[in-house]
Amino acid sequence: MSQSLLTTLCYIEQNGRYLMMHRIKKQKDGNRDKWIGIGGHFETGESPEECLLREVREETGLILTRYRFRGLVTFSSGDWQEYMCLYTADEFEGDLTPERMRECSEGELVWVDKEAIGELNIWEGDRIFLRLLAEERPFFSLKLRYDGDRLVEAALDGRAIRLA
Amino acid sequence: MSQSLLTTLCYIEQNGRYLMMHRIKKQKDGNRDKWIGIGGHFETGESPEECLLREVREETGLILTRYRFRGLVTFSSGDWQEYMCLYTADEFEGDLTPERMRECSEGELVWVDKEAIGELNIWEGDRIFLRLLAEERPFFSLKLRYDGDRLVEAALDGRAIRLA
Repeated sequence: MSQSLLTTLCYIEQNGRYLMMHRIKKQKDGNRDKWIGIGGHFETGESPEECLLREVREETGLILTRYRFRGLVTFSSGDWQEYMCLYTADEFEGDLTPERMRECSEGELVWVDKEAIGELNIWEGDRIFLRLLAEERPFFSLKLRYDGDRLVEAALDGRAIRLA
Repeated sequence: MSQSLLTTLCYIEQNGRYLMMHRIKKQKDGNRDKWIGIGGHFETGESPEECLLREVREETGLILTRYRFRGLVTFSSGDWQEYMCLYTADEFEGDLTPERMRECSEGELVWVDKEAIGELNIWEGDRIFLRLLAEERPFFSLKLRYDGDRLVEAALDGRAIRLA
């Protein structure tokens, strides 16, 4: 029996764009310089939805009013592991002011055309689940094993995916 | 950031019956005398499917060949919490011999008609997710908060469920 790290990650969508975070603010950040969605760690006793709503509110000021749980991603690298609940959202309340977009403590917030996201500096495994989201695949379980920055194993719903 | 306990639970189906485990063998068992499905704790680095297949093999000797990830259940009780990946399975290899059904270290294995499961000694919250499975509800996130043996809060995909 082992204790594990649980997180949520959300891609908020509007007008064909995703709200992306460029992680450039914290020196000690495993995601430094990478572009990812909005999210963070579960607090004690939170359900995935409670964590999702809190993290999005804290990082963007937005209140999600419609969201979907799209997949569970198992990350593994050496003896580190993380289980990430992946969401998309397309309705919310509140305004994302330019000040707020610059001021987020975790990174800079930018709306990016979905088609252009592949050109950003993103994790190799993120390309896989972003494709699954784009294909409207029903709920999936994706395992991603890294050796440092390099993706060395991927499995979708228990079946290995051949890596490029 | 907190570390959390992750588990899988699987209801294996055959001819309108679920394979149930009557937890009567271990003295110190939070599920003692309850009827539940087959499952257990994640080992380090396992994906949900890896944990599922290992636990089912260990407890029943069966190799699952078709299964579905049906929901994620958040259990909370005081400062204890558990996140359970819920599966159903309807194809497998191997034989479940009468010896094996009696000899499982965790409890006694019994095939039970799905309609009769409500009459067994099961957890209150399990009745909720067994109903969701029977209704073929798409992937769901269910939060169940207990005070001892009593279910005091339930939320489905982030919305409260009124309790009986």
